[in-house]
Amino acid sequence: MRGEQIILAAYPVGEPGDVDFTLENFIVMPPRVGEALCETIYLSLDPYMRGRISGQASCAQPVKIGDPIVGGTVGRVVASDDARFAVGDYVVGQGGWRSHWTASGDALRRLNPAVAPISTALGVMGMPGLTAYAGLIEIGRPLPGQTVVVSAASGAVGSVVGQIAKAHGCRVVGIAGGPEKCGYVVDELGFDACVDHRSPDVNAEMAAGCPDGIDVLFENVGGETFKTALRLTAVHARIIVCGFISAYNLTEAPPGPDSLIEMLGQMQVKRATMRGLLVGDFEAVRPRFLVDMATWIAAGTIRYCEDITDGLAAAPSAFQGLLRGQNFGKALVRVAVDPTR
Amino acid sequence: MRGEQIILAAYPVGEPGDVDFTLENFIVMPPRVGEALCETIYLSLDPYMRGRISGQASCAQPVKIGDPIVGGTVGRVVASDDARFAVGDYVVGQGGWRSHWTASGDALRRLNPAVAPISTALGVMGMPGLTAYAGLIEIGRPLPGQTVVVSAASGAVGSVVGQIAKAHGCRVVGIAGGPEKCGYVVDELGFDACVDHRSPDVNAEMAAGCPDGIDVLFENVGGETFKTALRLTAVHARIIVCGFISAYNLTEAPPGPDSLIEMLGQMQVKRATMRGLLVGDFEAVRPRFLVDMATWIAAGTIRYCEDITDGLAAAPSAFQGLLRGQNFGKALVRVAVDPTR
Repeated sequence: MRGEQIILAAYPVGEPGDVDFTLENFIVMPPRVGEALCETIYLSLDPYMRGRISGQASCAQPVKIGDPIVGGTVGRVVASDDARFAVGDYVVGQGGWRSHWTASGDALRRLNPAVAPISTALGVMGMPGLTAYAGLIEIGRPLPGQTVVVSAASGAVGSVVGQIAKAHGCRVVGIAGGPEKCGYVVDELGFDACVDHRSPDVNAEMAAGCPDGIDVLFENVGGETFKTALRLTAVHARIIVCGFISAYNLTEAPPGPDSLIEMLGQMQVKRATMRGLLVGDFEAVRPRFLVDMATWIAAGTIRYCEDITDGLAAAPSAFQGLLRGQNFGKALVRVAVDPTR
Repeated sequence: MRGEQIILAAYPVGEPGDVDFTLENFIVMPPRVGEALCETIYLSLDPYMRGRISGQASCAQPVKIGDPIVGGTVGRVVASDDARFAVGDYVVGQGGWRSHWTASGDALRRLNPAVAPISTALGVMGMPGLTAYAGLIEIGRPLPGQTVVVSAASGAVGSVVGQIAKAHGCRVVGIAGGPEKCGYVVDELGFDACVDHRSPDVNAEMAAGCPDGIDVLFENVGGETFKTALRLTAVHARIIVCGFISAYNLTEAPPGPDSLIEMLGQMQVKRATMRGLLVGDFEAVRPRFLVDMATWIAAGTIRYCEDITDGLAAAPSAFQGLLRGQNFGKALVRVAVDPTR
């Protein structure tokens, strides 16, 4: 059997281009002992993937030239040599940008479509949801009445951060790009306010949105609004460094002045705590997360939005759009029909 | 009775100059009910004072033009209307740059010259010592075998940080300016290594000194070595932002490139924690600190060095020297003879 996959053709310099990716056929092998063969239904597009294809070592193995692009996938088991998985089971795993993937049963988790749509295993019920949950609750430790600010507020992580913070009784201010996203964040997700980072008055609007300062800053973007938010932190603020998508395509450090000293000053005067977040450190939190999130989704406490692109071949351009902030909600590629919808 | 004091004549712009300070007489008033009048023996010079005389609001009230410069002082009670203090008692308080000060008894702490020299109440047994103790132990949480790096390693805070870390079984690398200070840090204080930040090979020397990365970074200086140290942090590193003396005299942000994004990247990849330290948050730790430190000093575990300048009038120039790193050890001004020495 033949499948399709997208491999890394070249390490992108700056913004990834079409020439950095190649769609090719590969021979799908039957599963070996303890493995299952899965047909991909959805593949996840996430900002962290930009780091994986940069050719530079990081906290995870970089993708090599000629290798398939890595990433989370939801699919259906089409052949199994692991007694825990039967043909037709829906699973989430790390299939990457491929039409089919083979994995050890230990690297798969069965999904129950009755609990939540299977696509959510890549979003609110998956890595981005756990990132939001662990980062906000374990690092941010928000208290009722405190102010939580989250950037990329309409995105897969930010939207969940803000809604969990609302469920904790916090004042929640989002930062997003453009009036449509900002409106969604306030009107649909229930944030108290959302500042458009493209607004000429963005600094004044952020200050107005946070009259008592920022107690928890969940940072996904970096850039100028991050500096503004740092200045607005309250005493003993907690800052979660989840990402800085504004810089992922940069080929060199931004021009000066150097704001590192100002950051140190804010950290000291506010006695703030900043912590880098990688979701892999919070595997122990996952069982509690899955229970809480399923409850919240069922109760309507957590809402979500998916931005679905059809066809494996469209993955590179959808990924480029994600890095430009063109997606609206969790970015997914639908590789095959979802029989559960 | 007349005393002498140094008042703030102007807010310094950049490096403080002699014209920013004025020595003048003032009328020493007898203590009111619940107060004691103290004769200053030592006054403390500390980097944080630069912020207090900048005219800008910070975590503490700024010194106003015409007001005496604030700061810790050790002295002797010369008149008392507080039953807890008798004439002749040695005390530590917040007298500022004055020959005499009057304070509520609640703002004084009696010193026992038999436990430790009274001057140490401004150094190892005082604010800098508590800063080092609380920052390293409460925030840094060093474990045996881990690597601790501290800048301004021969200074009042850094020297204590490194010695406490050694007592905790850590590998300790200092950063200091010039071979004399570096030699003292290794030979007298027992650090494993000390890197001269003026060395042309400073980056390579820091990497060589920390072959397993940096688990705890106690930052007093900021600047280029801070960036180098950030790159050398190990996974789950703890970074204590105690100060950044390299920037205290700056009148604008340093030129670019902007290293903030690189900092965010290091924070995330290393899942590091950075926390701003103000000693005032750790008053609850002081009783334990005083017991531990007296024990360590008596046992020779903690050694210290004082850089004493004579005469109140010399305080401004000694303070200017402190900001240039010209002091060697805890900077003090001896305002009157110390009868206990």
